[in-house]
Amino acid sequence: MADRGPLLIIGGHEDKEGDKRILSALARLLDGGKLVLATVASHEPDGYFEAYRQAFEGLGVTDLVELYVNERSDSGSEEVLARLEGAAGVFFTGGDQLRISSQIGDTAIERRIHEIHRAGGVVAGTSAGAAVMSETMLVKGPSGESYRIGELHMAPGLGLMRHVIIDQHFAERGRYGRLLGAVAHNPRLLGVGVDEDTALLVEGDEGRVLGSGAVYIVDGEEATHSNIAEARAERPLSIFDVRMHVLSCGDRFHFSRRRPTPGPDEEA
Amino acid sequence: MADRGPLLIIGGHEDKEGDKRILSALARLLDGGKLVLATVASHEPDGYFEAYRQAFEGLGVTDLVELYVNERSDSGSEEVLARLEGAAGVFFTGGDQLRISSQIGDTAIERRIHEIHRAGGVVAGTSAGAAVMSETMLVKGPSGESYRIGELHMAPGLGLMRHVIIDQHFAERGRYGRLLGAVAHNPRLLGVGVDEDTALLVEGDEGRVLGSGAVYIVDGEEATHSNIAEARAERPLSIFDVRMHVLSCGDRFHFSRRRPTPGPDEEA
Repeated sequence: MADRGPLLIIGGHEDKEGDKRILSALARLLDGGKLVLATVASHEPDGYFEAYRQAFEGLGVTDLVELYVNERSDSGSEEVLARLEGAAGVFFTGGDQLRISSQIGDTAIERRIHEIHRAGGVVAGTSAGAAVMSETMLVKGPSGESYRIGELHMAPGLGLMRHVIIDQHFAERGRYGRLLGAVAHNPRLLGVGVDEDTALLVEGDEGRVLGSGAVYIVDGEEATHSNIAEARAERPLSIFDVRMHVLSCGDRFHFSRRRPTPGPDEEA
Repeated sequence: MADRGPLLIIGGHEDKEGDKRILSALARLLDGGKLVLATVASHEPDGYFEAYRQAFEGLGVTDLVELYVNERSDSGSEEVLARLEGAAGVFFTGGDQLRISSQIGDTAIERRIHEIHRAGGVVAGTSAGAAVMSETMLVKGPSGESYRIGELHMAPGLGLMRHVIIDQHFAERGRYGRLLGAVAHNPRLLGVGVDEDTALLVEGDEGRVLGSGAVYIVDGEEATHSNIAEARAERPLSIFDVRMHVLSCGDRFHFSRRRPTPGPDEEA
């Protein structure tokens, strides 16, 4: 575990023109190494690579290649695999997390990415690229309303991080309801909601918040009641005694202890 | 306290055409008595009265009068006060909660409404009319984003219900961030977030959920850390160990014990 690389879980819309706090953090982690920009989540990846190439200009990320697969059958091709050669990190951009899992799940590409991560390489993901990191991932569910029983689609993710379920564009799209719903399914999973232009940098067993928004931790371990298994579909969720932490820049969260730590004042 | 009338705290957009679950509950509480529709929150109250008159048709609420004041100076007039004579209940409709508190706060109208409530009359409020019920009320704050220090406007409300702060259109407008921010200011106040077409019917020290959405209870009593007093303005809020309950139709909440109780299955 100690040798595994960091994960950078970004809630979407990270700043690409201003102080680029999150992309700068990624550049520091790469330390001049090669970054593979995996645009697999997108149905129309045109323009993504160029936008990130410009954003990374001046941050020292000069060795940048794109990885895209149109069809699952491409995921074993030597040409595609060659793009991952010598990578110091992989960055999954946004789109549809189900495209990532269905196109590269259980393929040679996925295995190579896990190898890179296990060897200390960084894996970053924004929006869909963040959601896909967990073992079980949130695919679809209503934003801006309370969770109703049966309304959530989950699916197996890439499993880069265990025991969590990740949601993104969190406060911006009002996704508390669906993350609470996801956690209610099995409180073994800790809910992690990441705002836009905000990231959780996970190293070892601890995460630290970067960027301009907040990261929400929804812990259902001590929940005393939920109607998720009994109630009929379309009924709103009830769940009592959920513990919630709101973390902002500099704050840390220790995953196996399930405990937050305030950041130092100077980071505030 | 036992003699006080019920409060019906509605999150806005209660159904006026379908099964009207919330308006029906209000009609039952009135039991044929007179209802005063207070449209004070609105700058342009035209049409409100007629819409509610139609909605209450068939529910047995036939004695319905409107109470509106253009100027604070009208709030003492005998003509306006006469409208409250013999009322079994008062219903504050939506608009701007600051209009309610600034137009009728500390006037003869407000005193008369408190008298009606203390004598067992029902006070209902939807949207702004719900927000205004607490001692300290939420006036304005960003929806759909995490709370940033300094971004919230609070003001004294009508004080019909103590020790709570109420937010409305809750999940629909993504207001978790601002309610968490409000609670962080002083965890003595319990945060109550009410979804649209959803109400909390408070009788004595207990509330029961009605309608199609959820009611969120945000309890900061055991919070272990918050940066609200130290951090500079514009910084996102951090707060750790907030207890949250999501209540749906039939669930109850006991305010002085701060404990929820699941509703009976048949109400599910």
